[in-house]
Amino acid sequence: MNSKNSLIIVSGGMDSITLLHDYHHQIALGVTFNYGSKHNEKEIPFARLHCEALGIPHLVIPLEFINQYFKSDLLQSGGDIPEGHYADENMKSTVVPFRNGIMLSIAAGIAESNDLERILMANHFGDHAIYPDCRESFIKPMNEAIKNGTYKQIEIFAPYTLLDKRQIALIGQKLGIDYSTTWTCYKGGDEHCGVCGSCVERKEALEGFDSTVYLK
Amino acid sequence: MNSKNSLIIVSGGMDSITLLHDYHHQIALGVTFNYGSKHNEKEIPFARLHCEALGIPHLVIPLEFINQYFKSDLLQSGGDIPEGHYADENMKSTVVPFRNGIMLSIAAGIAESNDLERILMANHFGDHAIYPDCRESFIKPMNEAIKNGTYKQIEIFAPYTLLDKRQIALIGQKLGIDYSTTWTCYKGGDEHCGVCGSCVERKEALEGFDSTVYLK
Repeated sequence: MNSKNSLIIVSGGMDSITLLHDYHHQIALGVTFNYGSKHNEKEIPFARLHCEALGIPHLVIPLEFINQYFKSDLLQSGGDIPEGHYADENMKSTVVPFRNGIMLSIAAGIAESNDLERILMANHFGDHAIYPDCRESFIKPMNEAIKNGTYKQIEIFAPYTLLDKRQIALIGQKLGIDYSTTWTCYKGGDEHCGVCGSCVERKEALEGFDSTVYLK
Repeated sequence: MNSKNSLIIVSGGMDSITLLHDYHHQIALGVTFNYGSKHNEKEIPFARLHCEALGIPHLVIPLEFINQYFKSDLLQSGGDIPEGHYADENMKSTVVPFRNGIMLSIAAGIAESNDLERILMANHFGDHAIYPDCRESFIKPMNEAIKNGTYKQIEIFAPYTLLDKRQIALIGQKLGIDYSTTWTCYKGGDEHCGVCGSCVERKEALEGFDSTVYLK
């Protein structure tokens, strides 16, 4: 087995940046999707920064049609980002329908085109409440579909599926990751707003860390 | 159940145009993907023509990144289209990695955004030999992934999975479809070349039909 046999889906958020550093010895290619969310432009430079620092080639795939035709408040075309807790019912309006399925499928095609064998994705337990395409009941059949639908029998590797964001942050702390070079806020403003669901979850995960990390 | 609860993935080829006419009473939206194949520009106007004739709204989703980053001779960026029989080993070079997974995933997101419940796709038995993402071993887990990964529990409906192209053509004949307004040739020239794998399969399927149909 080639030691660098994996592609990673990396957004520029805390989770995927942690996964990138955690498994960088196995990663041949980083792929980021620009699907027109309010915060894509804030995330993507961080995804590139960390890939470059680790010497990993990095692609940005534009998916303008999502912003154009999909219904979600996470998108530039959608309504205001709700405030509250990440797992709250009102956060459902920020779900981008089947986003993980779309990203994994495109990643599978790019992996097969580059003789890679594995797709790394940083979905985690905190996502499960509102994101149907982050749960094991999605990941398991999606893995089988990709395996059976490619010549290389490509597999998904999602080692954080059962971890929460706090546990991921503690892995990152051990790895020496500077989380001020990651982006979480769904509003995509100049700084993290601190009150949207994803900022609230970021703050909980980084409790006890240098406070400037989550405010930047 | 809404009687028009389905989205169809329609290329403009014989199979998907037949499926479109076969199930048009249930179809609310037609979706075509322009992924930079040599024949997309020939197919897409036929997809639009048939959707318009049936009063079905039609979207074209551009996926330029496939032509840019994927490896396949079907693409404008790829090598020459091989000649011979559709199921021959050398036709493998025309496979676009995980194309059906990508199209189905995007269709699932569009369906969920439009409150639709079902995705129609015209994969058929003749595809199975070289296309891993046309077989039941792919369709079944992909269906489960989409069902579990969407709030609407969207399902794939692929009624031609076990039919060959001849059987599909005979359905189309009964429906009165004019196959001269469909496109098959992978080379995408002014007329069907008659010698590439997909033209050979088209000719076999249309044997006994008016000969002008497959030469146009």
